[in-house]
Amino acid sequence: MKAIAVLPGKPNSMHLREVPKPKVSDIPNGRGVLVKVLRVGVDGTDKEINAAEYGAAPQGYDYLITGHESFGIVEEVGPNVVELKPGDYVVATVRRPGHSIYDQIGTYDMTTDDMYYERGINLRHGFLAEYYVDDPEYIVKFPRGLKEVGVLLEPTTVVEKGIAQAYEIQRRLRVWRPRRAAVMGAGTIGLLATLALRLRGLEVVTLGRTPKPYLNSELIEALGARYESTADLPIVESAKKYGPFDIIFEATGASAVVFESMQALGKNGVLVLSSVTGGNKSIEIPADKINLEFVLGNKVTVGTVNANREYFEMGVKDLAHAEAEYRGWLRRLLTHPVKGLENYQELLNKLTTAKGAIKVFCEVAEL
Amino acid sequence: MKAIAVLPGKPNSMHLREVPKPKVSDIPNGRGVLVKVLRVGVDGTDKEINAAEYGAAPQGYDYLITGHESFGIVEEVGPNVVELKPGDYVVATVRRPGHSIYDQIGTYDMTTDDMYYERGINLRHGFLAEYYVDDPEYIVKFPRGLKEVGVLLEPTTVVEKGIAQAYEIQRRLRVWRPRRAAVMGAGTIGLLATLALRLRGLEVVTLGRTPKPYLNSELIEALGARYESTADLPIVESAKKYGPFDIIFEATGASAVVFESMQALGKNGVLVLSSVTGGNKSIEIPADKINLEFVLGNKVTVGTVNANREYFEMGVKDLAHAEAEYRGWLRRLLTHPVKGLENYQELLNKLTTAKGAIKVFCEVAEL
Repeated sequence: MKAIAVLPGKPNSMHLREVPKPKVSDIPNGRGVLVKVLRVGVDGTDKEINAAEYGAAPQGYDYLITGHESFGIVEEVGPNVVELKPGDYVVATVRRPGHSIYDQIGTYDMTTDDMYYERGINLRHGFLAEYYVDDPEYIVKFPRGLKEVGVLLEPTTVVEKGIAQAYEIQRRLRVWRPRRAAVMGAGTIGLLATLALRLRGLEVVTLGRTPKPYLNSELIEALGARYESTADLPIVESAKKYGPFDIIFEATGASAVVFESMQALGKNGVLVLSSVTGGNKSIEIPADKINLEFVLGNKVTVGTVNANREYFEMGVKDLAHAEAEYRGWLRRLLTHPVKGLENYQELLNKLTTAKGAIKVFCEVAEL
Repeated sequence: MKAIAVLPGKPNSMHLREVPKPKVSDIPNGRGVLVKVLRVGVDGTDKEINAAEYGAAPQGYDYLITGHESFGIVEEVGPNVVELKPGDYVVATVRRPGHSIYDQIGTYDMTTDDMYYERGINLRHGFLAEYYVDDPEYIVKFPRGLKEVGVLLEPTTVVEKGIAQAYEIQRRLRVWRPRRAAVMGAGTIGLLATLALRLRGLEVVTLGRTPKPYLNSELIEALGARYESTADLPIVESAKKYGPFDIIFEATGASAVVFESMQALGKNGVLVLSSVTGGNKSIEIPADKINLEFVLGNKVTVGTVNANREYFEMGVKDLAHAEAEYRGWLRRLLTHPVKGLENYQELLNKLTTAKGAIKVFCEVAEL
């Protein structure tokens, strides 16, 4: 079958290749699920993988099949699979358990291993191929009626985990009724965070760099949230105008924003960090002030990466809720489709240069 | 009666004054508890209050009676008090509820009010006096058998709240079995944090500036914890040698340590900030790196201030546990007693200049 792969360590090595089609029997104990891939989204991580800044091939391979934002349909299941059946629409989770003693406790997205396994990213092949096979433990059923936006589930899980972690953490307050939220960044994750927070009934202000109006600011306002450009309103000022913020979701990819957000956070509030910042930037910060306000305000910062299946299941509910509340909104995020695995160069071009792109994705097969 | 007071706004105004003795009937609904003060500890906050950097007088007064680390004995109770009786040893909590709508939910140490009320600190008289009166809601019974160390309860609550908040927050992990902790700072709070973490069965390394051996390093080692001087072992190196740290308790008062501690924290770990840093210090930090590690490691930072009665009750249990496990250890923290309210100048001198002081406190009356 066809697959899009990179040669880890070699920049700009993305290519189409012929690889063996996986089989249900590749998974032990009769638990294989063979999935025909329909759509796969790409994001900044794929860009970094192609730049060889990130990513490793599975043991025994010199290439890594990329793609971690999958959507597909079950074609065949092993004799001991009861959770799924052929014809089911599905999304696969990304992280796979490691094998340290720590993995015996807790959930696999919270490993303390230094070595980790992520399909399409690190040491495990991804989904930019005609088929994949996996254990049903890592495959989440997706509602037929939402199939057009199924490729949005994996990015939604970033938001779901971040918000769920914030709510879990805030149980420390015994009673927490968040009212106001800020989202830093208006890209795909910022948009989905705005959506998820609006669905939870919060007032939301979303800050981006681009002056409005443009597609993303319109999408934010369509949710009844407010868009502000940081060109007009610096982050700390936004807190004075629209805060205090009970929750801030950081999704800009700029680490300086993290430390500005700390200063914009309200008392007892929680700041969720979801941006991967692979650079080397140092900045000067008002250390006494940031610490003092964190202590006197009982504030929290939490980092969040990846997601286990629980967050995929929450994401399904939020996407369904979104479609019920804001009909057609999700589809507007699917700005840049590319037909066929063979057009991987176009996929890459759109990902890196397309103006106004929200979600770039490959239509691997007809829905 | 005699009391030690300051004139807020005027530096070095600490003085002895004659004030009216409070009465049980000062508290509404027959709920007054009159307490004879036995001992009161002092700390950095008292120093700042005397320097007029902090603190406000109650409405209608131009002075503030100081002292928030109290220990006393009940002398009289109002007709509707069932929780306490004359002869009970007690410690009063410090924070009092405000009156915003937010105070209707949650606990009073987690207020979102900008205005707050703290006995001996802000807008409410403190305990450096012969008597005080309060509602039993804010008075915690203390075991007779531990009365010699009762003055340590209030500082212990800083540690109790910080650790309890960390454990509450870590419920987000579903299963959390912390094994290794670091404590930054070996003063009173650092010592009590080391104690509380050792009582919970963790391996603890405590970092201070002073090279060992000295009293504090000996006290730490007496708990089966390890003391390291940052002169020999920088914070980030300590994590490589003794980490990964599941929990770090920051109690140095130096905000630069906060951002070093962020870099020393283990995956899924939690950093507890308890130092009040009133200065104006700015520092340069590796922003990309700190954020990246927080995100990829699902890490948390939490600020913690003050305590509600729940943490005083936990503190009683830990002090009793400490006496059972490390007999006589707590008493060794009581390094600098000063007899009588009239010797407030000596109290202040010891607080600001005594070498090797751990706990400086006033013996207001015989135990």
